[in-house]
Amino acid sequence: MESCSKCGDPKIIIKRKQSGQALCKNCFIENVQKKVIKTIKKEELINKGDKILVALSGGKDSVALLDILYTFYEKKVIDLCAVTIDEGIDKYRDEGVKIATDYAKELGIEHEIVSFKDSFGLTLDEIMANHNHRGSCSYCGVFRRRIINKSAEKLGADKIATGHNLDDETQAILMNYLEGNINNLSKIGPKIESKVFTPKIKPLREIPEYEVGLYGVAKDLNVHRASCPYANTSFRMEISKVMKQLSENHPTIMYSTLKGFDKIKIAIKNQYSNVNSFGKCEICGEPSSGSLCQACSFLKELQFE
Amino acid sequence: MESCSKCGDPKIIIKRKQSGQALCKNCFIENVQKKVIKTIKKEELINKGDKILVALSGGKDSVALLDILYTFYEKKVIDLCAVTIDEGIDKYRDEGVKIATDYAKELGIEHEIVSFKDSFGLTLDEIMANHNHRGSCSYCGVFRRRIINKSAEKLGADKIATGHNLDDETQAILMNYLEGNINNLSKIGPKIESKVFTPKIKPLREIPEYEVGLYGVAKDLNVHRASCPYANTSFRMEISKVMKQLSENHPTIMYSTLKGFDKIKIAIKNQYSNVNSFGKCEICGEPSSGSLCQACSFLKELQFE
Repeated sequence: MESCSKCGDPKIIIKRKQSGQALCKNCFIENVQKKVIKTIKKEELINKGDKILVALSGGKDSVALLDILYTFYEKKVIDLCAVTIDEGIDKYRDEGVKIATDYAKELGIEHEIVSFKDSFGLTLDEIMANHNHRGSCSYCGVFRRRIINKSAEKLGADKIATGHNLDDETQAILMNYLEGNINNLSKIGPKIESKVFTPKIKPLREIPEYEVGLYGVAKDLNVHRASCPYANTSFRMEISKVMKQLSENHPTIMYSTLKGFDKIKIAIKNQYSNVNSFGKCEICGEPSSGSLCQACSFLKELQFE
Repeated sequence: MESCSKCGDPKIIIKRKQSGQALCKNCFIENVQKKVIKTIKKEELINKGDKILVALSGGKDSVALLDILYTFYEKKVIDLCAVTIDEGIDKYRDEGVKIATDYAKELGIEHEIVSFKDSFGLTLDEIMANHNHRGSCSYCGVFRRRIINKSAEKLGADKIATGHNLDDETQAILMNYLEGNINNLSKIGPKIESKVFTPKIKPLREIPEYEVGLYGVAKDLNVHRASCPYANTSFRMEISKVMKQLSENHPTIMYSTLKGFDKIKIAIKNQYSNVNSFGKCEICGEPSSGSLCQACSFLKELQFE
């Protein structure tokens, strides 16, 4: 009978297809934490004394991320705060907001909730009911990024940590390979720094989605497990299926995609160094490469439809 | 009723999903030829006076390629010759060899047939019956490349033209993105030059597979339409299915993948400039980056199994 590859415990909770390794609950938890710490060190994601803002949706990724970063907070290596965004998605978002709020309170960290409605005057449901020439994820991504950047500034955060896992990251890479979008590719990576925005870090980037989900179960974390009702319509969902399908026969394919991309990224960065000079958006005054930032240009579009 | 977007002929043979363009037989033929000539000019694939060796399997791609290059030969812009490789695949290869031979004779161009058996002492069937720790395509690719390079030298060719179409090219790109193989990516492109081998060119690189096949039908070319019996087992076949599936909803996805890759390729080339210093293979004396060339290292492996 199979037992834990680390400690011999006969009660295993995962057998990794990519390595054949079997792990019991405690060894799995420890292993995931160690891997995340390894990513943090290798990519120099966090400095001692950093105030980290966690983008906390209440889903499995951001809850696991906060759980792991909290160990640094407990040891007083970093300061922590969190922001939860209420996009206004009926029968979906409320539960996530509640879980996030409860968890932040339980940990005793600074937490704020910001809604699309308060920030932009429209919920995502209202946007999608009245306008449909862009995908929901386009609107949502731009507006969410805006809120997160503003929160980071307001709360004085040094870094923004997001829960992107290995699946998320390789999906983004593959989507942009297929769309031939070099500019977007240059913005993917473990740490995204820019002259005008708070740096973004992705500590879970090398952990597969399945394992992030299992981590939450193993640690008995309360997690919002529902899927966004808009997700099915996206190109990302198609690509997600493709990657999952290929991973069946090729269990290391996401790792090799990520490794290859990280090499390509260096080349892209040196070849096409970002020549975007940031000015200020004419409407909101936020940093923008054009006369209008993307959020304001979307809002203008929505008003004139 | 739909009619040809160019001449109004009501008998159309293709309606392109990516552009909505409908074309009659003659306009389609002319359009494909023009596109290939555009690729040749843009990528500077051919110089006046070049002797071009076509790798002629007898399949739809290489036959269409030879058909188009023959127009340059007729105008005495280039000289042409062809090589057909007999890999030794029972109930498959003989028909292709016959079609290739007949076509070369019909056009009156220099043609040679070279077999794996004569070159390496083994047919592909024999390799695959006795050894299976590599995919058939790995052996076949390495041995075929060796034969083509040698033929080019022997026949004094300035360039080797292969029938790779848009699907082939984007499959190779995607495979290597997913495998994270930067070295292989650096060898993909419209014109592959090296210090030691005859340059390889891919004039059909921007024509989708379906259109290359249709070109053969439209021009009434005799073409070997069977598929290689070994193809189903390959990673390439999986990726081919993925790309076809994605193309259903995103008809321009192969073009955007190719365009994006061509930009990435420039960056890769500049970042990871090929530092391979070519020496000579200890066994056969052919150019090799290691002490043994890949063909000899495979042959050695096969002898010791």
